[in-house]
Amino acid sequence: MHITVETAIQTITNTVPPAVILAAGEGHRLNGVNGGSPKPLTPVLGLTLLERAILSCKEVGILEFYVVIGYHADKMIPYLDALEQRLSLLIKPVENPNWREGNGSSTLSAAPYISRPFLLLMCDHLFDPAILQLLLTTGNNTADCLLAVDRHTDRVFDLDDATKVQLDGDVITGIGKEKDSFDAVDTGLFLCQPSLFDALEVAKDRGQHSLSAGLVELIRSREFRAVTIGERFWFDVDTPKSLSLAKRALLQSLSKPDEDGFISRYLNRPVSRRISEVLVRTPINPNGISLLSLAVGIVGAVMFCLGEYIWTILAGLVIQLSSIVDGCDGEVARLRFQSSKFGGWFDTILDRYADTAIVAGVSFGYWLAHPHAAVWLGAIFTLTGFIMASYTKKEFVIRYQSKPPSGLFGKLIKRDLRIFAIMLGAVVNLPYEIMLLVGLLSHVGIGWVLLKGHRQMR
Amino acid sequence: MHITVETAIQTITNTVPPAVILAAGEGHRLNGVNGGSPKPLTPVLGLTLLERAILSCKEVGILEFYVVIGYHADKMIPYLDALEQRLSLLIKPVENPNWREGNGSSTLSAAPYISRPFLLLMCDHLFDPAILQLLLTTGNNTADCLLAVDRHTDRVFDLDDATKVQLDGDVITGIGKEKDSFDAVDTGLFLCQPSLFDALEVAKDRGQHSLSAGLVELIRSREFRAVTIGERFWFDVDTPKSLSLAKRALLQSLSKPDEDGFISRYLNRPVSRRISEVLVRTPINPNGISLLSLAVGIVGAVMFCLGEYIWTILAGLVIQLSSIVDGCDGEVARLRFQSSKFGGWFDTILDRYADTAIVAGVSFGYWLAHPHAAVWLGAIFTLTGFIMASYTKKEFVIRYQSKPPSGLFGKLIKRDLRIFAIMLGAVVNLPYEIMLLVGLLSHVGIGWVLLKGHRQMR
Repeated sequence: MHITVETAIQTITNTVPPAVILAAGEGHRLNGVNGGSPKPLTPVLGLTLLERAILSCKEVGILEFYVVIGYHADKMIPYLDALEQRLSLLIKPVENPNWREGNGSSTLSAAPYISRPFLLLMCDHLFDPAILQLLLTTGNNTADCLLAVDRHTDRVFDLDDATKVQLDGDVITGIGKEKDSFDAVDTGLFLCQPSLFDALEVAKDRGQHSLSAGLVELIRSREFRAVTIGERFWFDVDTPKSLSLAKRALLQSLSKPDEDGFISRYLNRPVSRRISEVLVRTPINPNGISLLSLAVGIVGAVMFCLGEYIWTILAGLVIQLSSIVDGCDGEVARLRFQSSKFGGWFDTILDRYADTAIVAGVSFGYWLAHPHAAVWLGAIFTLTGFIMASYTKKEFVIRYQSKPPSGLFGKLIKRDLRIFAIMLGAVVNLPYEIMLLVGLLSHVGIGWVLLKGHRQMR
Repeated sequence: MHITVETAIQTITNTVPPAVILAAGEGHRLNGVNGGSPKPLTPVLGLTLLERAILSCKEVGILEFYVVIGYHADKMIPYLDALEQRLSLLIKPVENPNWREGNGSSTLSAAPYISRPFLLLMCDHLFDPAILQLLLTTGNNTADCLLAVDRHTDRVFDLDDATKVQLDGDVITGIGKEKDSFDAVDTGLFLCQPSLFDALEVAKDRGQHSLSAGLVELIRSREFRAVTIGERFWFDVDTPKSLSLAKRALLQSLSKPDEDGFISRYLNRPVSRRISEVLVRTPINPNGISLLSLAVGIVGAVMFCLGEYIWTILAGLVIQLSSIVDGCDGEVARLRFQSSKFGGWFDTILDRYADTAIVAGVSFGYWLAHPHAAVWLGAIFTLTGFIMASYTKKEFVIRYQSKPPSGLFGKLIKRDLRIFAIMLGAVVNLPYEIMLLVGLLSHVGIGWVLLKGHRQMR
């Protein structure tokens, strides 16, 4: 059988749910910071709120979108058309002339397009796409409507304005803004059955046009359940204050606690996040940032070659900067939903080239005052340690199909610590000696990883 | 539920078929070369024929063995007991006092132990375990007896003595030694149903005690099918001549046509096979051989350091020897069924250390006559190229979960060619210059692999 692209897309869109995104409101509270644009077009770290919502869905495989618009539909429609083209997604604008009535009314206006389970999102929520994945996975086992809720109510920024949820196990027993006692907070992310529209119609017939009013109908039939998001990130953006906090929280969410070493976590990330915040608004792409980090590293290496103390200190600071910028490529990629296999690969390889330049520069600077071949043999010994520390772990992944062993030695042979140690060495005018020491430590670490692998084999 | 090791083994042995190995014959034609031992105990490259048959089965997951013995059962029983202990397998000796009647009689003596599909093997056949895998995979879809056959009848050593097979599609229509027209040759590897025993009983009642006579009964009911082994290796060992050819063919089968570069294939392998043939009879294990190869490489590196032409030539030959011995660890591991994840990993990492030593040695030797820092910067540039050529490919495997791109550039950055080029450089007293050139080529190759990866992403 010959499968056309259209058939394939049809097959995918039949098994993957569509997403309904509510983007009809005015968001007047943000007018001061977004230049009077409709709220969905408020820029957040390089992308609009609406673009973030759509790309977060795309990350979990959603390809079909119904975006309910109201306020300034004249601006929204061309924007959505352009977005559809640029992202190669199916994005259908759904106009709701009665958008001022409430978000229940906006949800209902998508009803004609929806006949199977669907994701329902508010365009003004920033969130970790893993929450959508959680909804989709849980949704496989239930015919109920699911709401992602946050039980850490103490971390919610504007709790007064938040929609509260009362729970009996995972069954939702109450929902609304005016609850004195509650168990969790509504994150605005739903996986719904089309039966939601019936519930909204019932509420509408009673003159109630909010989404919550429809959900109360579902509660009566006990068809409404909660999924707890755990520690995952989400943020509701309503005011300039919450927008600024949301940006900070989004930047914080870029750290990789599993992968980052000590220095990365406590020194590099706090700085690189600030740089990424600037870079994300420029046209430079993540691979360009990887190259920039290498270039900065080479500049540092050349400064080491001069051999004078003042240049050595500067060189140390420059390579530390290079190490910091090295974190920005991934951060910008994640902020822009541009992460790619190639990007990660390219970055890792350029890091090894930067290490080579730094070892050569430090050794040259030292050799000027100590012109012995032993200086270079030490350089070669160190360079092998640096590159092989990474190589040995990659090989481990390939052979054992699992993460390389971590622990103290695993952390000791990471690049962040390596560069930081050489920087400190530069400051005290001992860059070569410290580099040798770090090289030696790397070889010890390699031996340790091999030993771990040998034990794992048994 | 708590699963004991016994339960787990029981579960496995119920789903994986047992193997019946016919090892009852005298093999008098081999008496001159095996010191009068029973044929199954004839040593072939470090292991006995019977051990090879059992370990080949173990490679495809078989854990339960019924070994039919006859000639010199007094020697065979203690041997099998020791083997069972050493290999942690279930190995049951089955004595056939009437073994002289024929191999049908020997097969029948295993009948009381077998009530499900089983592998049937002759202990005097060497073969690629992939053939057993082929039988097991094909066997899932059929209730017939399966015989692995070789359609390349021209490559069979002693065709007169071979059992010929006539085919109608994959249905076997005739079998026996005395066939003038035939389509394939019997490799002695079967996947059988217990119904084979009924067929053997029928033949026995007619006074026929050969396996072929029983198989003829299966042919009548059209329950006997062939599986073609393609290019896979097998060899029937009956005479001193065939034993010596079998050893050669087994050594030949150790090459890795997919992975080996030009030099490996046409220069290193033919020599390393001869070395492995010796090493396999010593107690040295594959990881020890990896270390030996590194040690030889370091000796070559030290010889380069002396800087004199005669030592440079010798050093070139020694590092080429190291590169040759580098192939022996894998060969000995495969010959002894000792291949392990750790072994491959360890070998790769030691190779990078050997490269480091060689780059340092060649550069030191050159620096004696040209004491400039540029010599060492060239060394560092080259070393990064050497290590990163491999690193880049490993990263490709991790990111793309597929083999790295091959082709001309892929071959140009392989270690066999690198060492060979430096050896040639040493012979013409230009080891450093050639090493730099190879380093430059490596960087070009790395760029090429990156480019391929970038295209693959799209």
